[in-house]
Amino acid sequence: MTELAAVIDISAELQMVDRAVLERFESRSVLLNAASQYLLRSGGKRMRASLTLLAARLLSAGGKQPDLGRMLNIATAIEMIHAASLVHDDLVDDADVRRGRPTVHNKWGGNVALMVGDYLFALAAEQMAAASDPRIIKSFARGVVRICEAELSPVTDVVPLECALDQYFAKIGGKTAALFECAAESGMIVGGGDDEQVMVARQFGYEIGLAFQIIDDILDFTGDEHTLGKPAGHDLQEGTITLPVIYAVEMGAGDIVREAAQAIEPGPELVAAAVAEVRRICATKRAFTEAERLVHAAIERLSIFPDSPAKDGLVELAELVLRRKM
Amino acid sequence: MTELAAVIDISAELQMVDRAVLERFESRSVLLNAASQYLLRSGGKRMRASLTLLAARLLSAGGKQPDLGRMLNIATAIEMIHAASLVHDDLVDDADVRRGRPTVHNKWGGNVALMVGDYLFALAAEQMAAASDPRIIKSFARGVVRICEAELSPVTDVVPLECALDQYFAKIGGKTAALFECAAESGMIVGGGDDEQVMVARQFGYEIGLAFQIIDDILDFTGDEHTLGKPAGHDLQEGTITLPVIYAVEMGAGDIVREAAQAIEPGPELVAAAVAEVRRICATKRAFTEAERLVHAAIERLSIFPDSPAKDGLVELAELVLRRKM
Repeated sequence: MTELAAVIDISAELQMVDRAVLERFESRSVLLNAASQYLLRSGGKRMRASLTLLAARLLSAGGKQPDLGRMLNIATAIEMIHAASLVHDDLVDDADVRRGRPTVHNKWGGNVALMVGDYLFALAAEQMAAASDPRIIKSFARGVVRICEAELSPVTDVVPLECALDQYFAKIGGKTAALFECAAESGMIVGGGDDEQVMVARQFGYEIGLAFQIIDDILDFTGDEHTLGKPAGHDLQEGTITLPVIYAVEMGAGDIVREAAQAIEPGPELVAAAVAEVRRICATKRAFTEAERLVHAAIERLSIFPDSPAKDGLVELAELVLRRKM
Repeated sequence: MTELAAVIDISAELQMVDRAVLERFESRSVLLNAASQYLLRSGGKRMRASLTLLAARLLSAGGKQPDLGRMLNIATAIEMIHAASLVHDDLVDDADVRRGRPTVHNKWGGNVALMVGDYLFALAAEQMAAASDPRIIKSFARGVVRICEAELSPVTDVVPLECALDQYFAKIGGKTAALFECAAESGMIVGGGDDEQVMVARQFGYEIGLAFQIIDDILDFTGDEHTLGKPAGHDLQEGTITLPVIYAVEMGAGDIVREAAQAIEPGPELVAAAVAEVRRICATKRAFTEAERLVHAAIERLSIFPDSPAKDGLVELAELVLRRKM
């Protein structure tokens, strides 16, 4: 996130968020503290916290700054919910590795992963309570509900196209975009936005959240184990159908792609061949174009807000989503 | 809970809570709705909701009644958190059966159980947000944190006595009493109590919560498959050390009890022999005496409140805890 410093410097606040997410652990359970710290120290770009901090400042150009404590509470809560959903997501997927390191359930077992997630949800609820606005708590609760729904709503097949796309966007809308939506929405609420401004912030968050996940899904085809922390084609291996695969089939890719997508447990050769075919037919480029479209639509929405460093920061953040390589 | 009707009739409100917990499910995920409804329909005595509804009325004798909507929001949230913690607890314990019916993860798999729990936590947070009091949300968040801590804090051995008792009360204090505490505390907050009254309500909830769990642990020795929905000695079988076992060892029970408590996977014969020995030496009676002591201490605390049907109801509720047979 250092690129953001060029237009607006929120690094001090982000450090405060980092400290807050690590210092909130005051549990009497050694295991809970250790596993939570491990989880929250394992990197992450604090994209969601940045979104909150910038959205909160959108209306304060030249005027009163929003309350720092409330902004930090929400940004911290967002990062905790994000971490909680990752640890439960890894448990559902039985993933061994995240960002190149062993997952919590791989290291400490499923029960610790289960409780660490619940614990972080509860800590996040406490943080939000301190923000003292029922709209914010409602926003987060709906966000978590949508994450849960998405977790249980797979993309069932690559065809028919309309159905596959509907399922895909419903899935990533919950899995990823819902929390970006909350981050932007709750930031704008703290920043004193009216109903329309809050709605626009939410849509901005939603669209860059979708783009963020599309890029993630593209990187699973174009990246390698070094940058991804897991081998390319991991999603296909796990039976997860993403946008590049859906587009590849629609663009007339070889049967191998459909075969890999429909297989119960595709072997590594089948996956490697399907990954190569998805790349060959440039389905990842088409997916990238869709992500670009979403980012531009999101930036367009910001026109209702006065020009400010925070607005420039949000534009930068949106463009960063497209540039990320891991 | 029908016995309560003699002193104060909260059956209409409890029916509203029942409806609310079943009607809040408006998820687009068929699985989430089905599993949540299954979970919340599977009985339960709504003890925690009753505690909230009665505590909320403790100060309203002859005066203004607390807001019905806010009381119901909190009572509903409490029951949702209770259900969420049960479904995650069953997942941690890999329990096949609860109240004589297959558990959610047994019926739909671990991933559904994981998400149903998260979903219910989120719905509960939303309910609480509607109650619009940060103290209440804080109370619930601390409650969930303590449930998580307790889930990962086993009683490691039956000796030394002091250590075993400390571990046992820490465990059940989180596992069960924390939510009773929240229920009473948040009811009192809605009822307009001052800081001291809120504290007393919390302690009342804590003590009857401890007693509730002790009785539960006694029933695991004195009940049978018909009343428990699981065979007697189930806790020992699962490696869970409870108060009757700790007392039995301290009262000089045969080595068989200690052996069963320390075994990694005790066989059914060993468990049956240990259960018989715990009964023979009357360790369950001693545990019952401890539960009685806690209930009487809890009732004693109510003396700071004016006499009222709600107070009589809480006394009844506390005594019911000692009388329950399943």
